Amino acid sequence: MSTPTDRTFPSRADLALIPVELDEDGSSGSFVLTSGLARHDGAMYGGTGAAAAVMAMEAATQRDALWVVTQFVAQAQTGERVRWVVEPMALGGRIAQLRVTGTAGDRIVFCALGATAHPRPGGLHGQYRTMPVVSPPDDSSRVRPGPPQVDPSQIGFHRKVEFREVAQPAGTASGSVLLWARLTSGALVTRATVAFLADMIPLAVARAAGRMGAGFSLDNSLRFADVPPSEWVLLELTGQVAVHGYGHGDVTVWSDDGSLIATGSQTASMTFLFDPDEVEARRTLLGDAAT
Amino acid sequence: MSTPTDRTFPSRADLALIPVELDEDGSSGSFVLTSGLARHDGAMYGGTGAAAAVMAMEAATQRDALWVVTQFVAQAQTGERVRWVVEPMALGGRIAQLRVTGTAGDRIVFCALGATAHPRPGGLHGQYRTMPVVSPPDDSSRVRPGPPQVDPSQIGFHRKVEFREVAQPAGTASGSVLLWARLTSGALVTRATVAFLADMIPLAVARAAGRMGAGFSLDNSLRFADVPPSEWVLLELTGQVAVHGYGHGDVTVWSDDGSLIATGSQTASMTFLFDPDEVEARRTLLGDAAT
Repeated sequence: MSTPTDRTFPSRADLALIPVELDEDGSSGSFVLTSGLARHDGAMYGGTGAAAAVMAMEAATQRDALWVVTQFVAQAQTGERVRWVVEPMALGGRIAQLRVTGTAGDRIVFCALGATAHPRPGGLHGQYRTMPVVSPPDDSSRVRPGPPQVDPSQIGFHRKVEFREVAQPAGTASGSVLLWARLTSGALVTRATVAFLADMIPLAVARAAGRMGAGFSLDNSLRFADVPPSEWVLLELTGQVAVHGYGHGDVTVWSDDGSLIATGSQTASMTFLFDPDEVEARRTLLGDAAT
Repeated sequence: MSTPTDRTFPSRADLALIPVELDEDGSSGSFVLTSGLARHDGAMYGGTGAAAAVMAMEAATQRDALWVVTQFVAQAQTGERVRWVVEPMALGGRIAQLRVTGTAGDRIVFCALGATAHPRPGGLHGQYRTMPVVSPPDDSSRVRPGPPQVDPSQIGFHRKVEFREVAQPAGTASGSVLLWARLTSGALVTRATVAFLADMIPLAVARAAGRMGAGFSLDNSLRFADVPPSEWVLLELTGQVAVHGYGHGDVTVWSDDGSLIATGSQTASMTFLFDPDEVEARRTLLGDAAT
């Protein structure tokens, strides 16, 4: 968490991922939904919306994001300009509470609530969990999000991210899906880029149910700690429960030095599921790792 | 999760906790902040805001809440009327995505985002975690939220709730605070009343840090599964990390038969902390259990 004056938002790293254009007062802005920010079907990738909400709040207040929940309401399509407006709900000397509305044309495509904050000197500070012991990225299997029938050189956020799944020997499996993740640009992560990388909980709900596939996220909720310099982050993804077609799960995000960077949760409509033995025929999220 | 026609919201149990008055179209309404819905200082208890947001979404759509995040923006005071308006963001045949704004006078006191849903027939359904093995409420220690200098017969939500802390023998402590919770009315829980009971994460952040006390919640985020008939629920509260004065943690809510009812998370400003050896002098949240 930065002191008030030691940098400005959006950071260069964030702009490299989503080249936003800020309006003069910093509380509104826009970006064009390019193919690298979209899903394979050309609609906005959830992680793009979540990262944009983090960037919007940080830019409006020049403070680090503390928690941000982003609700995905409607689709924006590749080529559209996505605009946002940040409304201050409560602006304190340290904590800023905010609401964001994102639109494409006349449609609301996402809403967000959250807070940014300056540090409280002498305030409570500590990490109360430890990172799972895992093999490093170089010893983990490369996995590829999305359906394999799509040419990887074409549309999709997968061009901007790399995932490697940690092998969990039989008998030691944690019940979670453990993925190393990084931006293919090699950039060190930020709160906004963590939001881009961590939008992967639905696949852990499917895995917990013994299925492959994923679902359509209704939201992405993240709570941030400090973010030390780290290219790779470990996503510890856990499916908790599914209820009549909807799944809930959570994520803990770790830096490569074992620092807890963020915790998060998502709810998804689990409409894109199939059995593991269908994998050969219909490879999809994490399909490569399952073969 | 109910089928479309088998009941109406708000339920009798919810109205018994918060006697809301709905406007004609069901998408707005109000309630008076009585002393049993307030903190000891007379300001609105966070669980009241979270429960009201759940009730508002369910009443507007006549569907069960799926996930709800409530942001606490400003204080309402005992005796004030709190009004809310639900805005539909996306109304599908099954899923309704919603935004709620709660006001007192001309002040916004809370905002919420979330979704309600009808069941998806044949949709993914299952529980992927099991409840911790714990002693029953009768063998657990009664604990009392809030400062003891306040006469328990006076103002405060503690008159409506009972908490008992599960003893964790040395060497078996889970790292979580385990609290049995119920409404003192003896009512079976609902999604809204779970929200009222579960607003307790900050104390687990304090405990994780080896401190007593709690903090002021910035938000309350909950994701719901089915809710079987249960008077007592187990709150499995975990402090995850604190960053420069702000703490993040989560909760899993279990029915007395071991069903996972809800998962949740909160961020709090951890401004109300003291050391365990100060407990005798300044008893507070869980102070009774520590003596």
